[in-house]
Amino acid sequence: MELLEGIYTRRSVRNFSDSPVEDQHVMEILKAGSWAPSGLNNQPWRFVIVRDKGIRSGLAGLTRYGRIIEGAPVAVVVFCDREAMYHDVKDHQSIGACLQNMLLAAHALGLGAVWLGEILKNAEEVKALLDLPKQMELMAVIALGHPRDHNQSSSRKDLRDLLLKER
Amino acid sequence: MELLEGIYTRRSVRNFSDSPVEDQHVMEILKAGSWAPSGLNNQPWRFVIVRDKGIRSGLAGLTRYGRIIEGAPVAVVVFCDREAMYHDVKDHQSIGACLQNMLLAAHALGLGAVWLGEILKNAEEVKALLDLPKQMELMAVIALGHPRDHNQSSSRKDLRDLLLKER
Repeated sequence: MELLEGIYTRRSVRNFSDSPVEDQHVMEILKAGSWAPSGLNNQPWRFVIVRDKGIRSGLAGLTRYGRIIEGAPVAVVVFCDREAMYHDVKDHQSIGACLQNMLLAAHALGLGAVWLGEILKNAEEVKALLDLPKQMELMAVIALGHPRDHNQSSSRKDLRDLLLKER
Repeated sequence: MELLEGIYTRRSVRNFSDSPVEDQHVMEILKAGSWAPSGLNNQPWRFVIVRDKGIRSGLAGLTRYGRIIEGAPVAVVVFCDREAMYHDVKDHQSIGACLQNMLLAAHALGLGAVWLGEILKNAEEVKALLDLPKQMELMAVIALGHPRDHNQSSSRKDLRDLLLKER
């Protein structure tokens, strides 16, 4: 898949088939995430891969979008390691770059994915469920699987509304 | 350029040739940025394109990496519109996704770019220089041009150090 085509045709995928996701594909997606840029190259992203149905149900109970996590064969829970961080805004931006690489990589591999952020309201409960140390700050859950449907439309503002000035 | 190849071969480019950057390429890079995902599809990113040498010098004086901005034919200053925002962490992440799309698009177009964040310490001065309203929160400057050199190496942590758990 061409890079620009991938950026423009990526969509949030919320419905998945029952086909499992190969481990090597999950690892490729994590690797793509890890190649995001970060300030001082501090690479603050950390990952938990969840395939277990019981734990996915536990996660699902912590967000109003739980149905998506229950229906996805894999959830990747993404954290920011506060011990690696140096500037909250810049580190959160880097995590966003990492998440975007992961979504693009999933798309390039023919998989579907969606970035779930609503679960951040229950960050402490997610950490407890996964038994993670205090320094891990929940950033997002990516639900991942083979898309059940394609053809989803999306839209963006006109560039003229985003371009404040040219100097 | 293949998507995954682009993710793995993108590097921060800090030295540029004197060749100008075509306007359609700058607009393609902004468009790619605008196709990032955002919470509630709120699309909080806003852009200022700076080619003017005097204004680039003004920006350059506000960061210790000014030499890069002075040597780049184009600087894209990226803001987050606080009136469009709904959650600081999630909006800053979305801006990171937008910035990553822009860096990848530049790479796909054969251009070089670097994400400059150190200038955030002088956010108010940048807004004054560009005469922007209070609601615009400075997120980053992307310096953009034709790369003077390639072959730059980079490295990332081993995935085993980033994967906290598999469940």
